[in-house]
Amino acid sequence: MSDAVKADGLELRSLITSDGELRLSLERVKTPEPGPGQLLVQVQASPINPSDLGLLLGPVDMESLSASGSGEAATVVGKVPPQRLPALRPRLDESMPVGNEGAGLVIKTGPGAEAYLGKTVAMLGGAMYAEHRLIGAAEVMVLPEGASAADGASCFVNPLTALGMVETMRREGHSALVHTAAASNLGQMLNKICLKDGVPLVNIVRSAEQAEILRKIGARHIVDSTSANFQAELTEAVAETGATIAFDAIGGGDLASQILVAMETAINRKAEVYSRYGSATHKQVYIYGGLDVSRTRIDRSIGMAWGVGGWLLTYFLQKIGPQDAQRLRDRVMAELKTTFASHYTAEISLTEMLQPATIAAYTRKATGEKYLVVPSKS
Amino acid sequence: MSDAVKADGLELRSLITSDGELRLSLERVKTPEPGPGQLLVQVQASPINPSDLGLLLGPVDMESLSASGSGEAATVVGKVPPQRLPALRPRLDESMPVGNEGAGLVIKTGPGAEAYLGKTVAMLGGAMYAEHRLIGAAEVMVLPEGASAADGASCFVNPLTALGMVETMRREGHSALVHTAAASNLGQMLNKICLKDGVPLVNIVRSAEQAEILRKIGARHIVDSTSANFQAELTEAVAETGATIAFDAIGGGDLASQILVAMETAINRKAEVYSRYGSATHKQVYIYGGLDVSRTRIDRSIGMAWGVGGWLLTYFLQKIGPQDAQRLRDRVMAELKTTFASHYTAEISLTEMLQPATIAAYTRKATGEKYLVVPSKS
Repeated sequence: MSDAVKADGLELRSLITSDGELRLSLERVKTPEPGPGQLLVQVQASPINPSDLGLLLGPVDMESLSASGSGEAATVVGKVPPQRLPALRPRLDESMPVGNEGAGLVIKTGPGAEAYLGKTVAMLGGAMYAEHRLIGAAEVMVLPEGASAADGASCFVNPLTALGMVETMRREGHSALVHTAAASNLGQMLNKICLKDGVPLVNIVRSAEQAEILRKIGARHIVDSTSANFQAELTEAVAETGATIAFDAIGGGDLASQILVAMETAINRKAEVYSRYGSATHKQVYIYGGLDVSRTRIDRSIGMAWGVGGWLLTYFLQKIGPQDAQRLRDRVMAELKTTFASHYTAEISLTEMLQPATIAAYTRKATGEKYLVVPSKS
Repeated sequence: MSDAVKADGLELRSLITSDGELRLSLERVKTPEPGPGQLLVQVQASPINPSDLGLLLGPVDMESLSASGSGEAATVVGKVPPQRLPALRPRLDESMPVGNEGAGLVIKTGPGAEAYLGKTVAMLGGAMYAEHRLIGAAEVMVLPEGASAADGASCFVNPLTALGMVETMRREGHSALVHTAAASNLGQMLNKICLKDGVPLVNIVRSAEQAEILRKIGARHIVDSTSANFQAELTEAVAETGATIAFDAIGGGDLASQILVAMETAINRKAEVYSRYGSATHKQVYIYGGLDVSRTRIDRSIGMAWGVGGWLLTYFLQKIGPQDAQRLRDRVMAELKTTFASHYTAEISLTEMLQPATIAAYTRKATGEKYLVVPSKS
C-alpha cells in the first residue's frame, strides 16, 4: 500500500506579514515519513468551523481580499488593519497551516502502528487543510465500521463542545441550561443530547425560521430574541426549566446580561425572604463564541452570585482530565450517525477554498450552513 | 448588672412601601430576654459601610428626601422610582432593621453564656443600628483586653473582606492581585496585609491625593486611572507583579475590562508561540462593590481564559467552611489594633442618622471617610 503514497502533497497556509498583509496559498510539502507509533493519513474530509476562521483569515478587512493565480498557484491577499497587528505579534511572518479537525484514510504506518493501516480515522490538532497529515496513533479515533471520512470529519469540535456544555452544567451544580445561536449545527446536536439525557434546555434563536428548525427536531423551549416580549418569554422559559447556566455563542451586546436578569428574576419569584444582595443562587454565562465582537454589557441588577467568562473546549478537556475526556469521545463514536451526525452545505477542494466567492460563502456563518473541505479532491 | 438593663430601646428601621415611599424611623422596641446560649448586647459602635446603604436607603431618589420630627420621633421620607420597585418586592411594606456589624457590652446573658457578662464583643448579622442586640454567644468575637467597642466595631466586614481577597487569590491559583478604589479603608487594610504577607498588589486609585494616602502606608504599585497613560501604566504594574486576579469595587464602565486587557497584554509579552485563543492563563475580575452602577462593559480581546463575576463575603465564608473562616477571624483579633485598625470621620447617634445633612455626608462614599454610629449615645 505504501507504494501508492505520493512524494508530496498540497497544504493550505495562512501568513500575516508584519506589514499587515494576509496571504493564503497552497504549499507543496514533502510527504513525511511516519516514525514509531505514527500514522500518515490521507485527509479526505475537514470541516470549516467558526473556530478555524480566526487562524485562517485573522482580522482581515474582507473588502480588501483579492485573488490571483489558479490551480495550486492560487493565492488570496488582503489587508489587516494596523491597529490589529500588535495582538497578532506571535504569528506575524510565520506561514501557518490551518484546519482544526478532519478524517481520512491511514495510508502508511510507522513501527508499532501497523494495525491502523487502511483504517478511516478522525483527528484533531490543526493542519488538516492538507492532502497529508502525520499524527500519533494515540491521538486518533478509529471510525466505526460503515462510517465514512465525511461522517467522522466533525466528530471532535462540535460533539465534544456540546457534550462539554452538559458536562460543565453537571459539574458546576446546575440542572438545566440555556444556549444561544441555538439552531446551529452545534445547537441541534445539543438538543439531541439534552432530549436523550432528559436535561431541560432553553434555546435562544434569532428568527422564526430558526425556531422552526429546532421545533422539527423536538426542541421544547424556544425563545426568539427578535420578539417584542423577549425578556418576559425568556424569563418564563428559564423559570420553567430552572436553568442557571448558559452557553453563549454571540458574546457581544446585551444578551448575556438578559439571560442573567431572566435567571435572577425567575429565582426571586420564589424567594420568601428579602436579600439585599439578590439571590444566593449562582448564575453563570459562558461565552464560547464571538458572532458579535462588540463589548459584552452586563447590567448588574442580578445580585452578587453571578459569573460571566470564556469557555474553550481545549481548556475544558484539560480540566476534566484524560479519563473523562475519553468517556466523552467514546459516546461520540457510539452515536456518530445519530446524535452527532453533521450535515454539510457543500464539499469544496483546497483550491476552491482560495476563491473569493467561496470565501464569502463559508465566512457567512449562516445558521445550519457548514462547508466540508475535501483535500483529496485536489 | 441585669437590674441596670432598660425595659426598651431604640432601633432604626427602613421601610419601603408598595407605593414607593421610603421611610426611616426609630422604633421603641421591648428589650428581649436572652435565652439559652444567648447574649443581650448594648450596642456601642456600628460603622456605616457601603454595604449597609443598600438596605438603609434602597434606590431612593436622594433629592426627594425630607425630614420631620425630632429626637426619637425623627423620620425621613423619600421617593423610590416606580421602575425600581419590582426588584424590591420581597422587602416591600416590611419594616427592616439595619446595620451589618457592630460591637458593644454584654449586659445580660442566658443560661450557659454567663461567662460573657461584662465582655466587649464584636458582632455580625444585621440590626446593629439599635440600642440592644440579642445574639448567640457562638456568633460573637470577644475583643482582646484593652480593645474598645469602637476598635472592634468594624472587625468583620472590612478585615474579612480584605483577608478574603488574599485567600481567594491563593485558592484560585494566583500569586498577585489588583484592587480598585484602593485608597479606601478596605484598600489600606489590604495593603497592610499584602505588605506583611509579601503578596504583590497593584492599587488603582482615582486621584493624586489617593495615591499619596497609599504611598504613605508603603504601597509599592499605584496606578491612577485618571492618568492619560493609564492603560500602559496599568499594564506595566500588572507585568511587574504577575497579577492575574482583581477585586473591583467600582463595577460599572470599562475598568474591569481594562484590567483584563492589561493582564492579557502582560502575559502575551512573554508568549513564545501564537495562540489564536489568546493566553491560556485564567484572568479573573471579581466585582464586590457598585460605586458605579452603570453596566460593566467587557472588551473581549482577552482570549478565552477569563472570568468576571460577583464576590460577596458571606458566600465566600460559606464556601471555605467554618474552620477556615475561624482561622481568618483569629487573625483579625490578633492584629485588631495594627493591620485591621479602622479610622472614623465622626461618631453619630441614631437620631443624627436621620438628619438629611448627615445622610448626605455618610452617603458620599468619599475615600477614607467612614461614619461610626454610637447607639448608646441616644
